[in-house]
Amino acid sequence: MYIENMQGPEDVKKLTLEQLPVLAEEMRHALLIRASKHGGHFGPNFGMVEATIALHYVFDSPKDKIVYDVSHQSYPHKMLTGRKDAYLYEEKYDDVSGYSNPHESEHDFFTVGHTSTSVSLAAGLAKARDLKGEDGNVIAVIGDGSLSGGEALEGLDYAAELDSNFIIVVNDNDMSIAENHGGLYQNLKLLRETSGQAECNLFKAFGLDYIYVDKGNDTAALIDAFKQVKDSKKPVVVHINTLKGKGYAPAEQNKERWHFSGPFDIETGKPLYAGGEEGYEEITCKYLLDKMKKDPSVVAITSGTPGVMGFTKSKREEAGKQFVDVGIAEETAVALASGIAANGGKPFYGVYSTFVQRAFDQISQDLCINNNPATIVTFLGSVYGMNDVTHLGLQDIPMLGNIPNLVYLAPVTKEDYLAMLDWSMEQREHPVAIKLPGGKLISDGKTVTKDFGKLNKYEVTQEGSKVAVIGLGAFYGLGQAAADLLQEKTGTQATVINPYYITGVDTGLLEGLKKHHSVVVTLEDGILDGGFGEKIARFYGESDVKVLNFGLRKEFLDRYNPEDVMKENHLTAEQIAEDILAVLK
Amino acid sequence: MYIENMQGPEDVKKLTLEQLPVLAEEMRHALLIRASKHGGHFGPNFGMVEATIALHYVFDSPKDKIVYDVSHQSYPHKMLTGRKDAYLYEEKYDDVSGYSNPHESEHDFFTVGHTSTSVSLAAGLAKARDLKGEDGNVIAVIGDGSLSGGEALEGLDYAAELDSNFIIVVNDNDMSIAENHGGLYQNLKLLRETSGQAECNLFKAFGLDYIYVDKGNDTAALIDAFKQVKDSKKPVVVHINTLKGKGYAPAEQNKERWHFSGPFDIETGKPLYAGGEEGYEEITCKYLLDKMKKDPSVVAITSGTPGVMGFTKSKREEAGKQFVDVGIAEETAVALASGIAANGGKPFYGVYSTFVQRAFDQISQDLCINNNPATIVTFLGSVYGMNDVTHLGLQDIPMLGNIPNLVYLAPVTKEDYLAMLDWSMEQREHPVAIKLPGGKLISDGKTVTKDFGKLNKYEVTQEGSKVAVIGLGAFYGLGQAAADLLQEKTGTQATVINPYYITGVDTGLLEGLKKHHSVVVTLEDGILDGGFGEKIARFYGESDVKVLNFGLRKEFLDRYNPEDVMKENHLTAEQIAEDILAVLK
Repeated sequence: MYIENMQGPEDVKKLTLEQLPVLAEEMRHALLIRASKHGGHFGPNFGMVEATIALHYVFDSPKDKIVYDVSHQSYPHKMLTGRKDAYLYEEKYDDVSGYSNPHESEHDFFTVGHTSTSVSLAAGLAKARDLKGEDGNVIAVIGDGSLSGGEALEGLDYAAELDSNFIIVVNDNDMSIAENHGGLYQNLKLLRETSGQAECNLFKAFGLDYIYVDKGNDTAALIDAFKQVKDSKKPVVVHINTLKGKGYAPAEQNKERWHFSGPFDIETGKPLYAGGEEGYEEITCKYLLDKMKKDPSVVAITSGTPGVMGFTKSKREEAGKQFVDVGIAEETAVALASGIAANGGKPFYGVYSTFVQRAFDQISQDLCINNNPATIVTFLGSVYGMNDVTHLGLQDIPMLGNIPNLVYLAPVTKEDYLAMLDWSMEQREHPVAIKLPGGKLISDGKTVTKDFGKLNKYEVTQEGSKVAVIGLGAFYGLGQAAADLLQEKTGTQATVINPYYITGVDTGLLEGLKKHHSVVVTLEDGILDGGFGEKIARFYGESDVKVLNFGLRKEFLDRYNPEDVMKENHLTAEQIAEDILAVLK
Repeated sequence: MYIENMQGPEDVKKLTLEQLPVLAEEMRHALLIRASKHGGHFGPNFGMVEATIALHYVFDSPKDKIVYDVSHQSYPHKMLTGRKDAYLYEEKYDDVSGYSNPHESEHDFFTVGHTSTSVSLAAGLAKARDLKGEDGNVIAVIGDGSLSGGEALEGLDYAAELDSNFIIVVNDNDMSIAENHGGLYQNLKLLRETSGQAECNLFKAFGLDYIYVDKGNDTAALIDAFKQVKDSKKPVVVHINTLKGKGYAPAEQNKERWHFSGPFDIETGKPLYAGGEEGYEEITCKYLLDKMKKDPSVVAITSGTPGVMGFTKSKREEAGKQFVDVGIAEETAVALASGIAANGGKPFYGVYSTFVQRAFDQISQDLCINNNPATIVTFLGSVYGMNDVTHLGLQDIPMLGNIPNLVYLAPVTKEDYLAMLDWSMEQREHPVAIKLPGGKLISDGKTVTKDFGKLNKYEVTQEGSKVAVIGLGAFYGLGQAAADLLQEKTGTQATVINPYYITGVDTGLLEGLKKHHSVVVTLEDGILDGGFGEKIARFYGESDVKVLNFGLRKEFLDRYNPEDVMKENHLTAEQIAEDILAVLK
């Protein structure tokens, strides 16, 4: 086996051109075994095996610097840069992260995980090289799906200004996570069909040199191409035509399903673990499809992640023109929603919490200044969400919670959520965002009659005294549990409050609490800085009421265990009850 | 005069083709008189007179909907849609805003002011039209300078998906605010030089139909073109070649100077009011040029607004390769800075407060997760900054203040700022942002010896008791004034503190205050929600110390008088002292 001897890129260069495809097969085999047991990004890595080998065969990493976009396709790179063991031996699978990581290797230059960043980041490496008068190649690798993102297109536009060595490898597998959307993909198709010969060429239109490699999974062809551009004195695009999921038939056939996979049976491709119970994805999709049938002006928008809101291929077909995928383009998703609302439509934009921050300015300017009635729903904004440092969902409360005019709501139950949607999708007064709770879905079957149009009205769910616990969204239950513990320990029943509104303070209710309460406690599923609890602390700042804010410290966590993080942040019911007791004393 | 009779677009249609150029001259004359007395965006409006006439001649606004990018070129549109008086009569000059405004007219669809949004917003109008089964044209107008922004490029990419009427008018005057930067401008040049015939065409590469109008200031040529595309069933780009500042010789000759102008003498073009004293623009430019000479790895970055940091054309030439304009592309500016820092360079990114929010995700992900030592400086983030609703600088504290790893600093004086730069540009540990104070520049000549590398250490500048006043940045002086008043009234000297750090709490110092202080007051130049003061309120939440947070309410202000806003927010020294007294009682 060659792969077992790969200590670094220098070992790739020792192989003959004939041996490289064998290395590729070995790597793919290891990737398959690991994926079947461990899960992870699948299709992107299977398509990039040969290109990665060719890059390390031709270039001299780390002097030559390779920057991967999203870096969910960097497993082969890690295998060839001293980290093969994490792909060969099960006990070492967790030694590496799922993304490029400078803490792991000098061959990685950035911790990344969001799309469309590689060209601009790599341009920075190249610019610094030029300022320092150094040489060496800088290579940005970017997938076709990532090209639709504003930062990537800005980067392509800026690249031509470099006027020095800069190589952009466009890994074109004709897929985003789902199918691509956007006019530029017609041009990529034209380029593939003409072997790169078409005169109308997106990359040339951005002022860049260009070469095309039809056989993007052929090491020899790729090596030829990379040798051509090595040490180029001008920015150049190498457009390679690859097959996503190459080498595993189920993944070649159903690319969307195999973009990312949990553990599975290699024979059949079937997941080892059955899907969970009904989640907010399915609930959302069902709600929207039903509403679309009754109202042609309802439209669901995604920015390249239709799965987040349950829109599988068949559901997308069912929705027809009432489902819009703008490609990976969060800014345009928000602006589009605002425009649709301005013209009387009823837009819904579903987005991962970690990605909603890609449209801060559009939410503030395009949407909220204009007060257009669009609905944004954030998914997995929770300590129980994704736990890679690049995919945290702990920032959306400070991010969305402080933008004027926006109404940001925190449902606790499925029933809350549906009632909020019923209100939000029909009202014409406010831009609305809804923060879906993380953790286990709660459905209590209760009918929600609350009028969400009466803004910032919190609800007392348990009358009590001395202590009031305000539990926001996913942490409402934790607040109730802490209140119960407190009652056990002191005999005093605390008041428990469901605030519903992240973006506003119920001054009447809070004022009223002063009479019989000496401590007000807040809980929120996100970082405390700039969050919900601090608004309550400010409200009571000049009063005698004590305020305790519970939530997460401001930090970038990485690959954490939620239970550990909860404990470290004093977020178990026991810890909360103890902290309250300490203040009561 | 025709212009005096223009009650709405229907009156434009009543003129003959021969009369339209006369109307254009009348409009330009009115614009010139108004600009010379009132100031405003100059070049963009002078270039768009004929195109605006032609749009209203051919299309039927408001059924046909025109969306302007930035909308700083919408003065001619306002003149033709019922708002001519605001351009003809000096006493009515302030009846209109400087940007499109749905509150003024049914012919305006969005309140906008940031760049690169028109295509995506207008796409939303078109999508809603299609969902509702209506007809009518939707027209997005966008300048060449705005095309470099990610949202615009995303919008061009998405547009082809519409598959229905959608017209994008690209107003190409071969200028951004300063000269254009980016590879796409080579393509625009090629298209201009070939009368739109070149096969390699950025817009076609995005899947769009395309026509070219060489005479972009000729009403007849424009009317021909617009008639061609009217009621088109497919998205189409109309690329028009216009002259920025057309009709006023000084503006045609020095386009950068005349992008925006204050009042001036029409004969000479000279400003009526002399420039102010030295500001942070000049101080920043001088500092950077000096540093660049000593260190070739220092690089200043702008995203299309070099003037914000004092880099006039001659200064840019002086800096050479050490000055980078990425075009209007804030996302790429931040990523580039991160990449430069990662490779050992010393990047400085200067940006208006109102625009820094266009790069939230890049600051969080590309920069702060990677902990790269770049320096970002925010300008005009202040109640004393720009006062159009689309250009407020009141959001940067909640926006930047809650991102992990970022060190956000608030200087009070010029000397503070320079000392912060000295530290920030040389350290290799942290991403740093500096919030320049608004209002009158303060220089006290004092040497600043503070080591900013010891994070979150506030400074007590006046020892006192009972009350501690923490005045952040521009509001430090206000805090001192309130403390002085308090002393006058009560005889008690308050402690006064300069916190310097927006992003962290000096727990040691705050803990120590508990001993001899019952009230802690915070002041900040921005909205309170998610801001600095709330962190202090949280810190003291469970203690007996009372906290009063002073700052601005969360709202979108528009064209306000700063003194009024200060009073309304209880931000005069008298009001603050009174509020403190009320709590002391």
